[in-house]
Amino acid sequence: MNQTDPAGELTREVLDRIEGAPDARLREVLQAAVRHLHGFAREVSLSPAEWLAGIRFLTAVGRMSDDQRQELILLSDTLGLSSLVETIAHPVDAATDATVLGPFYVPGAPWRAAGDSIAVADPGGSPCVVRGLVRGASGPLAGAVLDAWQCASNGLYDVQDPGQPPGNMRGRFRTGDDGSFVFRTSRPVSYPIPDDGPVGVLLRASGRHPWRAAHIHVIVSADGHEPVTTHLFDAASSYLDSDAVFGVRASLVKEFLAQPDGSTLVEHDFVLRAA
Amino acid sequence: MNQTDPAGELTREVLDRIEGAPDARLREVLQAAVRHLHGFAREVSLSPAEWLAGIRFLTAVGRMSDDQRQELILLSDTLGLSSLVETIAHPVDAATDATVLGPFYVPGAPWRAAGDSIAVADPGGSPCVVRGLVRGASGPLAGAVLDAWQCASNGLYDVQDPGQPPGNMRGRFRTGDDGSFVFRTSRPVSYPIPDDGPVGVLLRASGRHPWRAAHIHVIVSADGHEPVTTHLFDAASSYLDSDAVFGVRASLVKEFLAQPDGSTLVEHDFVLRAA
Repeated sequence: MNQTDPAGELTREVLDRIEGAPDARLREVLQAAVRHLHGFAREVSLSPAEWLAGIRFLTAVGRMSDDQRQELILLSDTLGLSSLVETIAHPVDAATDATVLGPFYVPGAPWRAAGDSIAVADPGGSPCVVRGLVRGASGPLAGAVLDAWQCASNGLYDVQDPGQPPGNMRGRFRTGDDGSFVFRTSRPVSYPIPDDGPVGVLLRASGRHPWRAAHIHVIVSADGHEPVTTHLFDAASSYLDSDAVFGVRASLVKEFLAQPDGSTLVEHDFVLRAA
Repeated sequence: MNQTDPAGELTREVLDRIEGAPDARLREVLQAAVRHLHGFAREVSLSPAEWLAGIRFLTAVGRMSDDQRQELILLSDTLGLSSLVETIAHPVDAATDATVLGPFYVPGAPWRAAGDSIAVADPGGSPCVVRGLVRGASGPLAGAVLDAWQCASNGLYDVQDPGQPPGNMRGRFRTGDDGSFVFRTSRPVSYPIPDDGPVGVLLRASGRHPWRAAHIHVIVSADGHEPVTTHLFDAASSYLDSDAVFGVRASLVKEFLAQPDGSTLVEHDFVLRAA
């Protein structure tokens, strides 16, 4: 032990111990994690009582997490980590910006025909049409897939709400020969993320609200291209500047235009990178 | 969004959002945690697949943690964080060095008389005597308390082993008028930390073993003084240079001296700081 800097010496000892990890990438990630974890504790002089409070908080987060409620992903979302990982993964270019997947995606949404509505059961919803193109570098992409999902007008996703049939507010659509798509839904509403667990406690202690800006989720994919996981945000929504999970990208905020029949129309082209 | 550094802009947005936390210390700790968490992800360009692997790992750690098995503390221990927090909390001075508490402490150990053995049921153990003084800045401390615990010679603590009576290998002792203590036990053995969970998976992936150097745990306390949570390590033990939880301090490694009757004797004075 170097008695002049025992904390720094301890950190070096831990890093040395991981030096033998057979997988080079695991070694790199784990050593960086240790440096930042120790750096954090040293920087704030984390006390034993604070360490224990952190252990208890993270244990509660882990114990609440299962297939139905992933509280740890919610923690990652509310600390901006999920959004950051998407930002790191995708260069800034002409392609559609990615944003967070969120905890409510369900693979295998019903296939629907162009023009159909995903709002199978949403009597309180305000009708809305979404349309546009899916494009690659060389033009519109026929047969591309939009996998869309959102909450109903009560602010709940089907998987949170026994009153909704499975697959409500979800659907997969293929673009036509001209690369176009069109589907109907309800105009999205703002909703609070689940805040009855430890993440809710942390949000309140941080002086933060749990609301997300109104949005429609979409994963867009096409042969020979990178899929993109993204949102369309309603430009009229509250919380665009304080979305609880830091999912807003300026390029994804769209005007929902009032139509003569009382519905709204939002138009957006999705641009995919070649794989 | 500043398009020249969207990741950095996102980190600043998260830090700003926490600016309203009413408690100044929570704000400081949380902002430092966010800076290091984001710094880690940016430094290694954490991919979405790696992020998900991390979420799954930490969820498994949290779900395995309960009153009997605290896998998250084990993770903190094996990453050196628990030891670091102890190191940060205590200045380097003449007082006894602190080290990790570990997961096997049980409050309320049986009170025993000077000279008694804590090895109530350890037929395979090698007899050992532990003796010394508890001192403060102004000399020996009468009526100080040693709360001692260790594993039996099969490498298991009573709480892990239905074959041991509760309180086996545990005891509380008071120093006499001259500040001295003496108790008997079994010479400690090396043992592996529980490695059948996700922490064991991480140790193996890191090329590390799960063994702890042989030690006796002690919490020493006295009126008007800071208690110290520490170990006595056997200088003849393996793993002193690779203790799985980074608990070894050079000042705590002691010779266990062979006695004519076949037992061993270890002598150590504990020095407490004034409160």
